[in-house]
Amino acid sequence: LRHHVRVSHETDGAALPDPLLAALRAAVGPSHVLTDADLRATYETDWSRRFHGVAAAVVRPGTMDEVAAVVRACGQGGAAVVPQGGNTGLVGGSVPRAAAPRDGRGAPRPQVILSMLRLRELGAVDQVAGEVTVGAGVTLGALQAHLAGSGWEVGIDMGSRDSATLGGMVATNAGGIHVLRNGVMRQQLVGIEAVLASGEIVRRLPGAVKDNTGYALPALFAGSEGTLAVVTRLRLRLVPPLPRRAVALLAVDDAGQAATFAAELRRRLACLTAAELFDDDGMRLVLVHAGGEAPFRERHPRYLLVECGAPDDPTDQLVEAISAVAARDAVVAGDEGGRRRLWALREGHTESVNAAGIPHKLDVSVPIGRIGAFDVAVREAIRAAHPLPRIFIYGHVGDGNLHVNVLGPDPDDEAVDDAVLGLVIELGGAVSAEHGIGVAKTAWLVRDRGEADIAAMRAIKRGLDPGDVLNPGVLFSDPA
Amino acid sequence: LRHHVRVSHETDGAALPDPLLAALRAAVGPSHVLTDADLRATYETDWSRRFHGVAAAVVRPGTMDEVAAVVRACGQGGAAVVPQGGNTGLVGGSVPRAAAPRDGRGAPRPQVILSMLRLRELGAVDQVAGEVTVGAGVTLGALQAHLAGSGWEVGIDMGSRDSATLGGMVATNAGGIHVLRNGVMRQQLVGIEAVLASGEIVRRLPGAVKDNTGYALPALFAGSEGTLAVVTRLRLRLVPPLPRRAVALLAVDDAGQAATFAAELRRRLACLTAAELFDDDGMRLVLVHAGGEAPFRERHPRYLLVECGAPDDPTDQLVEAISAVAARDAVVAGDEGGRRRLWALREGHTESVNAAGIPHKLDVSVPIGRIGAFDVAVREAIRAAHPLPRIFIYGHVGDGNLHVNVLGPDPDDEAVDDAVLGLVIELGGAVSAEHGIGVAKTAWLVRDRGEADIAAMRAIKRGLDPGDVLNPGVLFSDPA
Repeated sequence: LRHHVRVSHETDGAALPDPLLAALRAAVGPSHVLTDADLRATYETDWSRRFHGVAAAVVRPGTMDEVAAVVRACGQGGAAVVPQGGNTGLVGGSVPRAAAPRDGRGAPRPQVILSMLRLRELGAVDQVAGEVTVGAGVTLGALQAHLAGSGWEVGIDMGSRDSATLGGMVATNAGGIHVLRNGVMRQQLVGIEAVLASGEIVRRLPGAVKDNTGYALPALFAGSEGTLAVVTRLRLRLVPPLPRRAVALLAVDDAGQAATFAAELRRRLACLTAAELFDDDGMRLVLVHAGGEAPFRERHPRYLLVECGAPDDPTDQLVEAISAVAARDAVVAGDEGGRRRLWALREGHTESVNAAGIPHKLDVSVPIGRIGAFDVAVREAIRAAHPLPRIFIYGHVGDGNLHVNVLGPDPDDEAVDDAVLGLVIELGGAVSAEHGIGVAKTAWLVRDRGEADIAAMRAIKRGLDPGDVLNPGVLFSDPA
Repeated sequence: LRHHVRVSHETDGAALPDPLLAALRAAVGPSHVLTDADLRATYETDWSRRFHGVAAAVVRPGTMDEVAAVVRACGQGGAAVVPQGGNTGLVGGSVPRAAAPRDGRGAPRPQVILSMLRLRELGAVDQVAGEVTVGAGVTLGALQAHLAGSGWEVGIDMGSRDSATLGGMVATNAGGIHVLRNGVMRQQLVGIEAVLASGEIVRRLPGAVKDNTGYALPALFAGSEGTLAVVTRLRLRLVPPLPRRAVALLAVDDAGQAATFAAELRRRLACLTAAELFDDDGMRLVLVHAGGEAPFRERHPRYLLVECGAPDDPTDQLVEAISAVAARDAVVAGDEGGRRRLWALREGHTESVNAAGIPHKLDVSVPIGRIGAFDVAVREAIRAAHPLPRIFIYGHVGDGNLHVNVLGPDPDDEAVDDAVLGLVIELGGAVSAEHGIGVAKTAWLVRDRGEADIAAMRAIKRGLDPGDVLNPGVLFSDPA
């Protein structure tokens, strides 16, 4: 949401009071409290490059106790804590606010970035449970490397794997490309250890798959964007690898048909692991940008890419199932190269769109049964709001998560947001599917959720963080 | 936990003030406010027959608006609301407290049972999404009948299906026999509509699989045992049926080996849908009680029952996988009759144990990697606490949920609880796997969770229900 960009000036940042600086240095050691502007710089801007704020300090604890000491010191010293993992967020939730939060007298509060990157514990794989306990600062890629050869995989995968940390993935309830099979990050969590705003510790480790012993704090903390607790350690259930793959591309009439076919295939194929949608304009852009041959002689309105994964080759099953749906055309990859070429048509979208201009991007969830209606209506709505849009809609048709990208001259981003997100709300979807609210979508949170829903969220925030210590300004633009 | 039983006397029940009675009658119609003791009786005792309390009235709303009006009236009138679905709970959470909760001046508050059974809406199956929206009072069995022939199934199944309501299954985060494949109730929830303690409505329908638009209230309300909100309507994701089944019984050395083999089979078999454990004493009891032939000529210490489900016959896959683990012996069912006979050995446990005496039963979660250690240590601990115990341990080895049953003369239930639940906590499990805390385990909630964890839960309860309107006395024995 580019119209939210504010480039802050150094003067927006309140300095740390001396006692707080001393307390932070005592907590983590002086070398892990970065106050120099050059050292802070990479921590102060997120991956979107649109969100930036000045930190009074970047603090790098190495243990759970150090995290607790930092949070406690900040709470006592009136500072805001901005938890940060790999800083791959796109909604400004992991960097300081451009306009610092204010204290009760209206004075700016210092913002302290709590970098979790030193919590890199990689526990031994529990072969009997199929679970592993890791530090919050471990990247997804590091865990994947750790698991290599263990016979188990993480249930989540995504492009930012070498930067995104598992703690950040809990905080934002990451989704990625395997949600159809394994669910979102919340569903991988067996146990957590987390520091509350008070500096106290919630510890549910190793945890249990079936646990009805009080409120589901791990499920609540997942997706809370660092506003309720700082996760320091987590235990993940793992999934067995599915070494044999089969991939098919189906040409379809429209997005609604893609969703209908995906459902039909889901019913027929226990092995279905992905169902992805893209349009012809998007595919042409990818082919021009990345090269490659069109999969079909003719052009078709929309494409549905499906993948099966299984212990044994699922190609025959996939062929049988797709022959039961009346696609305009279909192609099944016969080998690894073919599978890669088909996936490249979908996965090349982000890069190709970015190379063609500066896209206005929206990441939304639409009720799966309304994807067809959304795809038609959203194009009309964007055209009404934008002079000459080039529209690319692609995403995970199997779970309703669509990426709407708009390129074109002189875009009125706010009008496009209104058009797209307004429609999402009207259809009963969610204005943030994967990236969260951060500071970018706080106004939309209020529009998407009802008054009672917002009141309940604020009551939870007030109850767990009465001093507004953890990530103030994220989710709610004013103190809850 | 039998030692918590209190049989209340009618004098414990505070009468409804006239204005509140009038408000309830206006809200739902006079015929749906039951105050006569005979009409109230079946609502006042739960399935365990151990928990009972006197209701000032049973109120039967027919719509979400009526539920909201009832909750609002009770909040204004100082009454406690006890939400109730099929009343199949076993921990006293769905019936009035034996000792009525007190108001600020120490006077007993009237308790109003909010029966949800009239919210029986059965929405059309959304074939594209594979989802359905239903009223909270629909039983699992009614939904299963509704789905027959639709090509979809509910992801959860359990023995109480014809009484348990879906709203109650959300409130207690039901598990059942398909958790290994589909997860618990929380993971089936796509959207909810719920009434807060204030009488206001949270509405996230139809909802989205990927939704990072604020806190995960549906996930929090799942398992909150009616203390945070009353779910009035819910949307469930559905799963494709797996029509072809294969079942095997493996004889193993001990419970730890059963867990190890289950993990190995989970890695090898994408089709694995169940992994169940029982011991030889339990199997003998079932064979004596229900008849039937022993599956093996010899007796073995423990048995592991595994099931595969798939679109095509998975017998060959199952046979190949079990031949790769070094079981003492194994038998694979060749037909439907054989599958039923093997399952009966596991499913007959509850009835057979109940027929042999009055068992002391505990339902706990143990970290899967510690099941072996637990099975050894818990038997020793029970023997130390009980004169002549007959111990039967069975359950879902694939998710760590074990049922510990103790029969024998003159049991000291409290000592057995201390032995079993103390060990569960020591090993990092959960003292309630499936049934929740209710009023039965409030003391154990405090022992299982840390202080900060309890403080966080209480803060959430206070934030969402400052007047302690919803199910006071459940989870926390005193106002949060």
